[in-house]
Formats: sequence, C-alpha cells, structure tokens
Amino acid sequence: MNGEDFCLQFQQAVELIGRRWCGTIARALLPGPRRFTELRRAIPQISDRALSQRLRELEAEGVVIRRVSTGPPVEVAYELSAKGRDLEQIIDGVEHWAHEWLGSSPHHTYERAHP
Amino acid sequence: MNGEDFCLQFQQAVELIGRRWCGTIARALLPGPRRFTELRRAIPQISDRALSQRLRELEAEGVVIRRVSTGPPVEVAYELSAKGRDLEQIIDGVEHWAHEWLGSSPHHTYERAHP
Repeated sequence: MNGEDFCLQFQQAVELIGRRWCGTIARALLPGPRRFTELRRAIPQISDRALSQRLRELEAEGVVIRRVSTGPPVEVAYELSAKGRDLEQIIDGVEHWAHEWLGSSPHHTYERAHP
Repeated sequence: MNGEDFCLQFQQAVELIGRRWCGTIARALLPGPRRFTELRRAIPQISDRALSQRLRELEAEGVVIRRVSTGPPVEVAYELSAKGRDLEQIIDGVEHWAHEWLGSSPHHTYERAHP
C-alpha cells in the first residue's frame, strides 16, 4: 500500500462502491441472483427508480449481470459478475468496520455542524 | 456476512468512505500526519475548498484528527484517528480490486451511456 501517490483507479473504485446505494445493492446480491422485486424488498428505503438506475450503472460497470430467462414467463434476475463477487472481502470489511465504529455513533453525528 | 438484511450501518459506512474525495483523503493519511498543503499536493485534482470541507466532515465523523501545535509558528496537521486507521484494510482491498478490475477499463466506461 502506497499512500504517497494519488491513485485515480482507487478513487474511481471507492466512489463507485460508495455511490448512493451501490454498495448496499452489491451486498444484497452476495448470496446469489435476485429479481428486481426481491432487491426492492431487501433494501426498504430505495425507490424503484433509484434501484433501476443504480442497477443499470452497476451493469454498465460490469459489476452486475442482468439475466433474462427464456419464458414464458420471462424472468429477469440480477447477479454479481466475477468483478462484483470480488468485492465481497471489501464489503465484509466495511460491514465489520461499521459495526465496530458506527454502532454507538448514530448517523446524526455526521449531520452535526462542525464546532 | 449476511447479505439478506438491509444494514443501515453498512450503508452509512460505505457511503462515508465513498463520498467524493473522502476515501482518497483517508488513503493519503495512511502513512502519517500531513499538513493541509501536503494533502493538497498529494491529491492534485482537489480544490482547497473541497479539501477543507471534506476534512471537516471526516473530523466530525471522528475519522480524522486535526492537531494544532503550540507555536510559533502555529502548525496544523491532520492525521487518522484509531477509527480512521482501522480503514486501512478496506483501503488496501479497494486498491487491490481497482488495480485488478479497473486497470484496463478507463473511467469513461462509467460515463458511457447504457446500451
């Protein structure tokens, strides 16, 4: 790890994972493929529109694969690509960090004005 | 790792790290404390204003500590707290993932319209 030099790829990667809902969607797909409605249920606060938009972005990034089954009925499912599955260790690390450090400090600490 | 249930803490953590420049600032502080101008040099694309704002946010989150030395001359340096240093493994993981998966796919792939 070399923190001395700016790394554009690091910046792109961390902001991709941290983009609104993207990390949470990738996390929800870790156990396996899911349909849109299943993802919606797994992430209660997300809107249909936001989920749909983020899935398109993650698909364009090659993190998520959209599979359409030959019907009838036609079924669409989303799953992680190899690139997406390779995020598992990072997702686990973030989850561990979050439980370690955010457990006792609720979200409003971030909203609080700087002294 | 349980991907079945929505985790607010995970969501907060991943979006904190992924917030514009935050991951890159934390990464630049891994080797040790730095002054504002040193951080500016380490992250060429960031503006003074954005760096200043992000440092205040990271300080409010308890990730970064701002130390003011007793002068003269008064010197201000920024360093990672224990909470911030605990991000090292995640930062390393993101960096590894970025080099593995974004090396041959430049940033414009994300900008490209979805087919």
